[in-house]
Amino acid sequence: MNIIDIIVKKKNKQELTYEEMKYAIDGYIKGNIKDYQMSALLMAITINDMTKEETINLTKIMIESGDIIDLSSISGIKVDKHSTGGVGDKTTIVLIPLVASCGVNVAKMSGRGLGHTGGTIDKLESIEGYQVNLSKEEFISQISNIGCAVISQTNDVAKADKYLYALRDVTGTTESIPLIASSIMSKKIASGNDAIVIDVKVGNGALMKNIKEAQKLSKLMIEIGKAYNKKVVCVLTNMEQPLGQAIGNGLEIIESINTLKNIGPSDLKELIIVLGTIMVSIGKNIDEEEARKLVLYNLENNNAYSKFEQMIEAQHGNINNIKISDKYISIKSNKEGYINKIDAYKLGEIAKILGAGRFNKEDSINYKVGIVLNKKVGDKVLLNEELMKIYVDSTDINISDVINAFDIKDNVVIKQELIIDIIK
Amino acid sequence: MNIIDIIVKKKNKQELTYEEMKYAIDGYIKGNIKDYQMSALLMAITINDMTKEETINLTKIMIESGDIIDLSSISGIKVDKHSTGGVGDKTTIVLIPLVASCGVNVAKMSGRGLGHTGGTIDKLESIEGYQVNLSKEEFISQISNIGCAVISQTNDVAKADKYLYALRDVTGTTESIPLIASSIMSKKIASGNDAIVIDVKVGNGALMKNIKEAQKLSKLMIEIGKAYNKKVVCVLTNMEQPLGQAIGNGLEIIESINTLKNIGPSDLKELIIVLGTIMVSIGKNIDEEEARKLVLYNLENNNAYSKFEQMIEAQHGNINNIKISDKYISIKSNKEGYINKIDAYKLGEIAKILGAGRFNKEDSINYKVGIVLNKKVGDKVLLNEELMKIYVDSTDINISDVINAFDIKDNVVIKQELIIDIIK
Repeated sequence: MNIIDIIVKKKNKQELTYEEMKYAIDGYIKGNIKDYQMSALLMAITINDMTKEETINLTKIMIESGDIIDLSSISGIKVDKHSTGGVGDKTTIVLIPLVASCGVNVAKMSGRGLGHTGGTIDKLESIEGYQVNLSKEEFISQISNIGCAVISQTNDVAKADKYLYALRDVTGTTESIPLIASSIMSKKIASGNDAIVIDVKVGNGALMKNIKEAQKLSKLMIEIGKAYNKKVVCVLTNMEQPLGQAIGNGLEIIESINTLKNIGPSDLKELIIVLGTIMVSIGKNIDEEEARKLVLYNLENNNAYSKFEQMIEAQHGNINNIKISDKYISIKSNKEGYINKIDAYKLGEIAKILGAGRFNKEDSINYKVGIVLNKKVGDKVLLNEELMKIYVDSTDINISDVINAFDIKDNVVIKQELIIDIIK
Repeated sequence: MNIIDIIVKKKNKQELTYEEMKYAIDGYIKGNIKDYQMSALLMAITINDMTKEETINLTKIMIESGDIIDLSSISGIKVDKHSTGGVGDKTTIVLIPLVASCGVNVAKMSGRGLGHTGGTIDKLESIEGYQVNLSKEEFISQISNIGCAVISQTNDVAKADKYLYALRDVTGTTESIPLIASSIMSKKIASGNDAIVIDVKVGNGALMKNIKEAQKLSKLMIEIGKAYNKKVVCVLTNMEQPLGQAIGNGLEIIESINTLKNIGPSDLKELIIVLGTIMVSIGKNIDEEEARKLVLYNLENNNAYSKFEQMIEAQHGNINNIKISDKYISIKSNKEGYINKIDAYKLGEIAKILGAGRFNKEDSINYKVGIVLNKKVGDKVLLNEELMKIYVDSTDINISDVINAFDIKDNVVIKQELIIDIIK
């Protein structure tokens, strides 16, 4: 077996065997197969696609490349949650304590920001003292004690994925449905949960630009789940505009807290209720009607927020000290009308420029900066009314075209549905 | 401009601009763009193809990346020759002195062996003392004095091609018609000749496996030539079986000498007459009828061989001391019949194992080893009659399946035409 034959086989649109993919991936981790060979193979896969069998095999190889977390000492059905990433996506921070407050144990490992989207772990680190690195024992013990923990994904889970992900990011091979599916599912399956609810973001601010692609990805992830006897539910949600109003780490924590106190933005609230209902229904093995009532009850009675406080405290965070910059620029509308579009991708990029995200892996994050939207799609806006506030930490940042992130129409605009599809 | 956008653009089957390709190639030579990024781009090009304009632009960028040889001080129309590479292809060694003996100056730069095919420069180095590295001044002066020189391609011509070629060789991206066309044409155009005759090998022993591909490559090279006002003629020739009878460096030099003395194998003779006629016709601006007469005259009257002797002497070679191993294995037929096929690729690989070629760039070559075929396609063979001699330098080489290189049939086999097509 040699890597050039394997690359040429995929280039010629032929199906790779388990052994061929294993040879390629293991050889790459060991360093026998070079970056330039793996990137050629990844490009051939990105263009020529993979079959369901190839994708399941690749997932298996990636799972086998690292540790597999054993959550069996935690009682009940464990339900994991994943998001394919969007702008202003603070769902995990609200959802995990909410679901735990309903009596479902949640062992959540999250990632850092990449590209134009933020990462849950970066956001949580804007809480002073919050510990994102727990040992396996601490992690399991905290969940057994208080019902949830959100920690940083360790490098030991699906090790091969780390290598491939870093390479894909710099070689134009991120937009491949089988590579995305195997990347997500290898990490989720190795994380040891019984079921996985996946928020598949769709639109301009997401990796999946259209519904058809998102459906294809969802079905593939469900198939991979089946091969491991894991229930997978995919919720396709709109990412044509940012989720909620806040973009940026500290600002998103504040918005998360508001949402946990049931005074957050309506779209975020809707999303956590939908996702929470599915997770609680699976976790408690009850019907969705009953699960939804439980979710609403715990949200309205402050139980979700109390659970959040418990979790932050258990992970040594100080919730009373979230710093936001006191310098902001108010962006006002130059016309009267209705918000037709808000360019989530552009706002994500602007947040990154402000310092809320990273250009390189080594960059440090400024937790105090970001954007707060006053208007969302469908809202009416008057001339000179504020569209958003840009929280800055330095005044020499060039964000002159930020106004173009808003598209304003004269006529009434129908609000977009947040939940596009649910695939089980 | 950034390389990831350029890679993604080609991944999405869009046409790259001159500026984008220039950014990618120049950045790669400078080291700003990494091997793994260039290999992803090359794979996207290999799968998604390039337009004529893209290929012409890429060729231009590769020409601009290195030196351009000025042959204007040499009188007359200068005609270059190139072969896409085959097994037993010693055409250049015979053709260049033949054409020079007809009064056409030939300034030829050749390459070394790669893959399963040998290289003219390696073959010439089996002549003791032969100097393959001349300075530009020595090169031009020799051509002005005796009419021809064959030297090693310098690293300074089409510098970018060296980088891309080495990467393509290890990333499964060799089989791309636009990449092959721009690689050949950038070197040929930068070499400063007025016209180029290209021997496009077709078949199992060649890079082009079928006639359609070879025609596509030929037409593309002719188009690139037009953009530089260079006449290009492509001769498609059969490479289902090796050319001539000898494979291996010293053995091929002996066969070349025999052919120059007009006692060589008929297929090699046919090829040099066809290619020589085209080159002499262009070089002397005479019709092909007249050119052919001139070629035959100089071949039959020993003028071609005398020219070869002059060239070898001018480049300090000693033609009387070509060493061939005295150990050989005689491979005999295990049945009576007619030769149906001879696997050129397999014989090329066996010659490499014997030591006639390289597995890695650093490997040294054994000039004394190789293969001499007694039978060619269409020949009758008796039981136990010798099919070929394998000249070895060590007795522990495993060539047990060499007999399978010959396919022998009971019925008469029609000989294949050597010249498949001529495209101008």
